[in-house]
Amino acid sequence: MSEEVLGIDFGGTKVAVGVADRAGNLVRQARLDTEAELGAGQVVSRALAAARDLLDGTEPAAVGVVSPGIVLPDRILLAPNVPGWEDLRLPELVAAEFAAPVTVGTDVKAAGLAEVRWGALAGADPAVFLSLGTGIAAAIVVGGQVLAGANGAAGEIGYHLVDGADEGFASGAAPLEEAVGGRGLGLRASAALGRPVTAAELFTLARRDPAAKELVSRALDELSRHVANLAITLDPRRIAVGGGLAGSNDVILPALRERLAQAVPFPPEVVAARFPHDGALRGAIALAG
Amino acid sequence: MSEEVLGIDFGGTKVAVGVADRAGNLVRQARLDTEAELGAGQVVSRALAAARDLLDGTEPAAVGVVSPGIVLPDRILLAPNVPGWEDLRLPELVAAEFAAPVTVGTDVKAAGLAEVRWGALAGADPAVFLSLGTGIAAAIVVGGQVLAGANGAAGEIGYHLVDGADEGFASGAAPLEEAVGGRGLGLRASAALGRPVTAAELFTLARRDPAAKELVSRALDELSRHVANLAITLDPRRIAVGGGLAGSNDVILPALRERLAQAVPFPPEVVAARFPHDGALRGAIALAG
Repeated sequence: MSEEVLGIDFGGTKVAVGVADRAGNLVRQARLDTEAELGAGQVVSRALAAARDLLDGTEPAAVGVVSPGIVLPDRILLAPNVPGWEDLRLPELVAAEFAAPVTVGTDVKAAGLAEVRWGALAGADPAVFLSLGTGIAAAIVVGGQVLAGANGAAGEIGYHLVDGADEGFASGAAPLEEAVGGRGLGLRASAALGRPVTAAELFTLARRDPAAKELVSRALDELSRHVANLAITLDPRRIAVGGGLAGSNDVILPALRERLAQAVPFPPEVVAARFPHDGALRGAIALAG
Repeated sequence: MSEEVLGIDFGGTKVAVGVADRAGNLVRQARLDTEAELGAGQVVSRALAAARDLLDGTEPAAVGVVSPGIVLPDRILLAPNVPGWEDLRLPELVAAEFAAPVTVGTDVKAAGLAEVRWGALAGADPAVFLSLGTGIAAAIVVGGQVLAGANGAAGEIGYHLVDGADEGFASGAAPLEEAVGGRGLGLRASAALGRPVTAAELFTLARRDPAAKELVSRALDELSRHVANLAITLDPRRIAVGGGLAGSNDVILPALRERLAQAVPFPPEVVAARFPHDGALRGAIALAG
């Protein structure tokens, strides 16, 4: 058995597989398309095959696996963005492949743990890792640990109610995620501009197009109000921002800082995450380590 | 030195002084008016004199003191409801009076600790104690401890932004507290009904007066949206509601439960606090114990 650990991040569109040393340094990695519409089972099979390739005949010392949602032995809750994911017995499928211990967790919480252990949240407590991408979620760090909550659902702020009329979760909605998440922003931008536009493109367009600028500005207002309330609630020392929208951190971070400076009695630092693009994979490795 | 502990709760309108056994049972207590407008020093002197009377010549084994705000050695932050409180050197004034160790803390956080130790939050983790009164604040319980935050300000949700136009703390505002706290409700009720009405009276009037009912309904909508978002953020097992408005828990608790059932992926239990009227005094005793 080697001293290397294996991490797998099952994302809604991509799966990342990585082998790291015990200090958390990625030494080999691979990416594949999730193609969730072909079924959850094939995603897991292909990821395990890719892991075997990366391991090149050795056995890992430990395995960490992350996914959106709450990974239970026989199903995965709160992962609506990955079709077929609900009934997946992910822990046992992975455990059947390896002799090493397997730890499973939620992608954003694991990414927060990686930021605490090796990244932008080291030494900050309490702290918040904020993941802005297709989904919106946070990892809340208290006493060096990521808060799980009573049901593993702490930090799932994509379900936050945005205004008084929102019904929220029970009606199938995720109001904050729909208002400021990548998918919601892309849909609204495409409708407003009359052509397919991703959220990342929207942020770029906003530098010159007034309609795009207005959409971005409204989304940042809403997001920053919720992040301010989160900071008032937790009084964190630092907030690190990562996720798929981190490419627009030059616009997002100043907007958050400005709002927090006004609204929060003790405004926390707002910084870019150290691992904006592979935070969940690093998190899977942190879980394994 | 006796086995009794002393607790003092400096509130904005009343000071409660109590002597308890080591199990936290109050054996003697007294209340006095704060009369903050006469100066902070006299409040402390009178409270200490009342404590001496209650102790009847014995020395306490330990002393716990709570106040609104963040009690620092040489000042008290975030306690705007008690005039002159900012520059009070509360820890040393109390420590000078007793040989026993003195522990100071924030009233709502201490009340939350009392609920964890002896009350409605025993065995629930994470959990939230929600104090609804003149002020609005929460104590967040993680791992059996009340979360302090980086600056002692965790749970100060009275500063939460309510809508996009709110500037919040830096402009001297406490938006959620103004919208749903006892003072704000009383002011709005008095204006709407053309005569002085307290928040408690407003809840009673709402049983028959449509204008009063509308005010209560709007406040509960706003409050329950914020409590739902707090529950989404923390995924607590249980929320206990106390504070000066607890007399209206027959209306408040069902409104919170209904909203949480809709909006929160795993709705926590919502219960009345065990110590709705003297939670902060019990908390002072919990700090001492």
